[in-house]
Amino acid sequence: MSIEVDYRFPPGVDAERQAKVIAVGQTAGTWDARFAHHEEKLRSHLAEVVGGRTDPDGYSLATISFPETNVENDISSLLTMIFGKYSMAGAAKVVAVRLPEHYGSYPKLGITGIRERLAVVDRPLIMAIFKPALGLSAEDHAAILKEVAYAGLDIIKDDEIMGDLEVAPTLKRLEACRQIIDEVKQQTGRTVLYAVNVTGTADKLIEKAHLLVREGANALLLNVLTYGFSVLSALATDEKINVPIFAHPALAGAMCASPDYGIAYSVVLGTLMAHGGADAVLYPAHYGNLPFDPAEEIRIRDSLRSRNVFPVPSAGIHPGVVPKALFDYGQDVILNAGTGIMDHPDSPAAGVKAFFEALERVKQGESFELETLPKSALRRAVEKWGVK
Amino acid sequence: MSIEVDYRFPPGVDAERQAKVIAVGQTAGTWDARFAHHEEKLRSHLAEVVGGRTDPDGYSLATISFPETNVENDISSLLTMIFGKYSMAGAAKVVAVRLPEHYGSYPKLGITGIRERLAVVDRPLIMAIFKPALGLSAEDHAAILKEVAYAGLDIIKDDEIMGDLEVAPTLKRLEACRQIIDEVKQQTGRTVLYAVNVTGTADKLIEKAHLLVREGANALLLNVLTYGFSVLSALATDEKINVPIFAHPALAGAMCASPDYGIAYSVVLGTLMAHGGADAVLYPAHYGNLPFDPAEEIRIRDSLRSRNVFPVPSAGIHPGVVPKALFDYGQDVILNAGTGIMDHPDSPAAGVKAFFEALERVKQGESFELETLPKSALRRAVEKWGVK
Repeated sequence: MSIEVDYRFPPGVDAERQAKVIAVGQTAGTWDARFAHHEEKLRSHLAEVVGGRTDPDGYSLATISFPETNVENDISSLLTMIFGKYSMAGAAKVVAVRLPEHYGSYPKLGITGIRERLAVVDRPLIMAIFKPALGLSAEDHAAILKEVAYAGLDIIKDDEIMGDLEVAPTLKRLEACRQIIDEVKQQTGRTVLYAVNVTGTADKLIEKAHLLVREGANALLLNVLTYGFSVLSALATDEKINVPIFAHPALAGAMCASPDYGIAYSVVLGTLMAHGGADAVLYPAHYGNLPFDPAEEIRIRDSLRSRNVFPVPSAGIHPGVVPKALFDYGQDVILNAGTGIMDHPDSPAAGVKAFFEALERVKQGESFELETLPKSALRRAVEKWGVK
Repeated sequence: MSIEVDYRFPPGVDAERQAKVIAVGQTAGTWDARFAHHEEKLRSHLAEVVGGRTDPDGYSLATISFPETNVENDISSLLTMIFGKYSMAGAAKVVAVRLPEHYGSYPKLGITGIRERLAVVDRPLIMAIFKPALGLSAEDHAAILKEVAYAGLDIIKDDEIMGDLEVAPTLKRLEACRQIIDEVKQQTGRTVLYAVNVTGTADKLIEKAHLLVREGANALLLNVLTYGFSVLSALATDEKINVPIFAHPALAGAMCASPDYGIAYSVVLGTLMAHGGADAVLYPAHYGNLPFDPAEEIRIRDSLRSRNVFPVPSAGIHPGVVPKALFDYGQDVILNAGTGIMDHPDSPAAGVKAFFEALERVKQGESFELETLPKSALRRAVEKWGVK
């Protein structure tokens, strides 16, 4: 089986020449007569240029097929091969990576497993983020969680910048929140997932993930790009980590935002996360006012779902976005709201209720026009944020 | 102590506004009256805009000072804080990061430690790369090493894409090369370092690093950006890893090459590697025909040296570059040649000899004009590659 990669070059680049440079330079390299006796073996490691075209706008696309034997069935060695040295060679962007189906890891739980743990099968899941991001005590976290959990929230996560700080130790936060989760379970029968941010140097991070799971963490959050795909894969293939891993896209823009350099969002947050073993992946949605291409978002969604990974569009998500998000995503989506829940004019609990009202209203085919809305949490949200 | 970051924005961006967005959005975020009782604590986590200017070309620079208490004294949490979410917000490039001196890790060996192990104090070190990159057997590696090691080479490294493959297991390669290293030591008294590429998911990679060191590896090579800074830090702070770590820049271009997005090469390959615990860092030099800014190269050199980390300029290094490289770097540099040694017209051993001839010629103040060169390995190299 082979690995196919599409590289896009801006106008003025000799794409045909560059494609050959990649096919040789990112694999075996060149060799001379001294290695003639190894000719066959060396050739078996070379990549091949299998396609190319130049579009009317002057951009060119080259497709290169790499032997799977050159890599280690993981994302890190894949990245080294397809764009390691070549990323430094000039303007070029990796816009698609097609991997063999078996390549890398599968999620341990994914869409079906997360739904089972929550016992919610027939609607999108609603997710919130602790806010403010820094400066709260473990007790503050527990108080916030209590409010939103009883209002019906499915999942909450740490802010990605909330690490294991002296002033806010991760384990304390988990212990305080775990009590609320147990209490909610006892009183309502409902499970609420709390994705705890797991951080540290790779060795300590893995140890801490074990500790957190032992201490009752029922989900983990990982900043995959600042810690490394090798850490995601380590957690994903670790039998002791029997909870879903939520992958956060922090730093993705450094690699993906430039039009002519780096790697497409759909590759990093779609293909690579899906084959890296994440159970759910957060990524920028086009609902806010940030510069995201809806076509890239659709590609991410489809790459993730093709491996049973939960898509978690984020940014600009508030109750008034629900009709549009359901149109774009259907049921298999986690709607992740930060301010869209925590900054509801009445309370975070009202923010959660507004989402469930919105889901129900879409289900009943009812309008979101302000004048048709009853006096409710949803109406208050729509007054503040409008409807998408 | 605080962490200062310079962000550069292209013309048309309201830099003043964006700087405020970063200072708040990448730290505590906003809060409302409910958290008034935490005001002081929340404020202590906020970053501050401490400088800004717009240059005549329309580019703006904003300097933001982040509290050190927000992060975990490592590179991964630092990246999440300074550019996690914001990297996805539009055109902006991190062009400088100023860390407190004690932040992160120091190299275990660095310039002084590597020189001690090699017992070479007064000249640049000469380094080669196994070539072809894939397709050789462990015995082939040993045969190549034998040739260059007896010719006087100081260090050799795996190609960064040479992983732990079924057709070429890392341990076999080490075992075969280790015999040569022992033999050279016995017969000449000289130590030759072999930086073995250490790969795998983070847990396995760390285990493998332990195994390789136990089996006699005297240096490691790590693709820091494809495996993660958290893996570099894990190895750098691991007492069992008592050998130098050579950091490879594979994938750096995906983050650094765009003029208006991502993070500057000097930050990723200079500042972050130097505080991440690498002993020696490879990075693109401006000697070849690749698009690297000599000013960035100088910044990388100085960041690394300021923490006793060996700079390893790579790309376009051949014997004819030695006078220019010595002018730019002086003695504390590792000259890393791929084809510049392995593709010498006579042999890889002649490639190594040509480098030492070149060093001696510079020392004696002798010319590199072709007609002044004796019939020698250096002359053959200069005939092929010229003089920089």
